[in-house]
Amino acid sequence: MNAASFYAKAPRHLVAVDCIIFGFDEGRLKLLIMQRKVAPMAGEWSLVGGFVQEEESTDEAAARVLEHTTGLNDIYMNQLHCYGDVARDTGARVISVAYYALIRITNHDKPLAREHGAHWLELHEIPDLIFDHGKMIEDALTALRNNAQFHPIGFELLPEKFTLSQLRCLYEEIYRKTLDKRNFRKKILSLDVMEKLDEKDKTSSKKGAHLYRFDPEKYEALKRKGLVFEI
Amino acid sequence: MNAASFYAKAPRHLVAVDCIIFGFDEGRLKLLIMQRKVAPMAGEWSLVGGFVQEEESTDEAAARVLEHTTGLNDIYMNQLHCYGDVARDTGARVISVAYYALIRITNHDKPLAREHGAHWLELHEIPDLIFDHGKMIEDALTALRNNAQFHPIGFELLPEKFTLSQLRCLYEEIYRKTLDKRNFRKKILSLDVMEKLDEKDKTSSKKGAHLYRFDPEKYEALKRKGLVFEI
Repeated sequence: MNAASFYAKAPRHLVAVDCIIFGFDEGRLKLLIMQRKVAPMAGEWSLVGGFVQEEESTDEAAARVLEHTTGLNDIYMNQLHCYGDVARDTGARVISVAYYALIRITNHDKPLAREHGAHWLELHEIPDLIFDHGKMIEDALTALRNNAQFHPIGFELLPEKFTLSQLRCLYEEIYRKTLDKRNFRKKILSLDVMEKLDEKDKTSSKKGAHLYRFDPEKYEALKRKGLVFEI
Repeated sequence: MNAASFYAKAPRHLVAVDCIIFGFDEGRLKLLIMQRKVAPMAGEWSLVGGFVQEEESTDEAAARVLEHTTGLNDIYMNQLHCYGDVARDTGARVISVAYYALIRITNHDKPLAREHGAHWLELHEIPDLIFDHGKMIEDALTALRNNAQFHPIGFELLPEKFTLSQLRCLYEEIYRKTLDKRNFRKKILSLDVMEKLDEKDKTSSKKGAHLYRFDPEKYEALKRKGLVFEI
């Protein structure tokens, strides 16, 4: 068999990308989802996604689709999983490669996303989504939790200076459970990746809460070494 | 736009699966690779792979291809990554979903694989492979190492009763480095997932080496909880 007929004999498939974009904003984990404006499935909710074109890699397709639908660019996305079940899309057989990212939402991003029909919703606010998009979100949350179990988190998400409450909020959102303040404080300080600053955040109480900052070197070293963070 | 034209407008792609099958045999980590018998690329070496057909999921395609080319069935494979670069295959644009598994090689499997043109080779024996198959192997080894860093390993690979040397060999093969016997012994025993048996293996010395067995409950509990195994 020559090369041309070797490839010509094989079936061809529609391939899509879907993006699970988590943001951390005002102490809440939010997810970027879209309400579809045009048919098919107008009015239904979905992840940000689209078809892979001929002259672009799947990574490039994910970046293009994200920028096109939300204005967000330069976002580093991890590949989550390739969803390849025959009947996962109700309209045709589509293989989907899912990507996820966790970003710090800026005030600049919010109106841009809205303009495009994309919304940052808290997890409990998310309506039913089309196809297996709900499962993709569950899988991405599992990946985030696994990451948080074995690596330090927060550096890319929190402001440069933050309080222990803000950091605890992030863990509580990812694990979707309330954590004991004292235990959390003890565990997180024992990791020895943060520096306590001589400044206080007084927005939530008169007494104020100490501000902390990650030590980039210690943070990176612990990321490489790994840890077990028991919740 | 109606649903039919929505899907009809999108480009279609060849989609393949590639399987990275590690085996543990005689104290060595081996990999199942194929020498291609027919054109295109006859004589060249590759992973076990093939195209995804219309009526099968990508998972099913991986299982079918593996069974068809090696006789191995009922192997639980993890999805590794979807390789979606435009020019990764030199013959046409093919998106490949890679899967990996670590299995205990049985004497039954070896002749079966050979019959199909598949060979179990040690890592240092592997010739240059086509396309990005070498990169897929590197990525699968990284996944194995990450798994071994945070979870107990060995249960699925070693015989029911094994010596500490056999277990150390497995870690040495996965990390591709020689480990200090005493340190390894101390670390692995401190995990408290094995039971020391009242039996010895006398194949490698007159004095013999103690045999151990994993405690399934403790092993599973540690797998859930996680650990940091520093090499």
